[in-house]
Amino acid sequence: MHRSENIVWQELVIKRSDREKRNGHSGFVIWFTGLSGSGKSTLAVEVERQLFESGCNTYTLDGDNVRHGLNKNLDFSFEGRVENIRRIGEVAKLFVDAGIIVCTAFISPYKKDRDFVRELIDTGRFIEVFVDCPIKVCESRDPKGLYKKARAGEIADFTGISSSYEAPERPEIRIDTDKETVIESADKVLNYLIKYNLISQENK
Amino acid sequence: MHRSENIVWQELVIKRSDREKRNGHSGFVIWFTGLSGSGKSTLAVEVERQLFESGCNTYTLDGDNVRHGLNKNLDFSFEGRVENIRRIGEVAKLFVDAGIIVCTAFISPYKKDRDFVRELIDTGRFIEVFVDCPIKVCESRDPKGLYKKARAGEIADFTGISSSYEAPERPEIRIDTDKETVIESADKVLNYLIKYNLISQENK
Repeated sequence: MHRSENIVWQELVIKRSDREKRNGHSGFVIWFTGLSGSGKSTLAVEVERQLFESGCNTYTLDGDNVRHGLNKNLDFSFEGRVENIRRIGEVAKLFVDAGIIVCTAFISPYKKDRDFVRELIDTGRFIEVFVDCPIKVCESRDPKGLYKKARAGEIADFTGISSSYEAPERPEIRIDTDKETVIESADKVLNYLIKYNLISQENK
Repeated sequence: MHRSENIVWQELVIKRSDREKRNGHSGFVIWFTGLSGSGKSTLAVEVERQLFESGCNTYTLDGDNVRHGLNKNLDFSFEGRVENIRRIGEVAKLFVDAGIIVCTAFISPYKKDRDFVRELIDTGRFIEVFVDCPIKVCESRDPKGLYKKARAGEIADFTGISSSYEAPERPEIRIDTDKETVIESADKVLNYLIKYNLISQENK
């Protein structure tokens, strides 16, 4: 444990490239953004499932595992939302460093916050997927009854109603969930990943 | 994307058990705690290297990838340290959920904080490793020159000097880094993991 030994040991640290070589694919983030009810989580789950079943090392970050854990001390104020996305971005970065394909499914309404995460992650490893769906369709789905509550004034700062959603201008992928099935949408995402060599053809 | 379809899709979510089955080992945390200079990071790196090379899905959280990222908005005050460990615990939990063996190397001086993380993680999946080393030895190593600065009063709240370190009372594993080589210490950790069926004999 002398200083010289420390230097030797540091060289034996497992690097992202070692992990990626073994996995047979890159580590990167597929960042799904869109309104509540747009289908982000459904699509993220399907994309992760296909990637996992084809042998990829994957994980999904969503409200279920983040809001009640890491981010449970944050509120839904502007500052709370900014810090929410910052932390998710930093955690996604750790998963990418671990060589993992990480899907994230969060409304992430502000362009500035999404661009912050994009800057955080190495170039080409942040795939922004705009899960585009008219608010009327989202509201008619209302899977968690949140739009109803927001319209009744029971939820403050609800994205699309009392808080803004800044649509991505140049997302890597745009999905119309009101016109496509989830299988068609997932296919679009997988084809993009193959096209840009993030996964190989065998991973589809 | 009707409500009924959502229910179907939810059943296709990849679970920890699916990930563990493919990995051939459990997801769990090896939590290294000890003074600055005790050899936590060196040991964590060696344990992770051996696990990775034997085919395990691994990652290490340490000051380098956490303090400058997720936790860069925290100071070294008491509150800052508590939140530091809480966030690391929550991130470790996500990695465990992803089926990964995650090593963490942080001083984590307070018993209450380590016990908080223990509670957070499922029973048997939190392996506390007390990297025990007399402060005189840590201070003589002083790999980052921090003890020198702390003695000169340039660093406030330095664990072991101006801030307390609460040694674990019943850690899963205790390591004397001043009496063992890093290879011997790593061997102790690996043997424990085999004994408790967290990894198989082939993973050593």
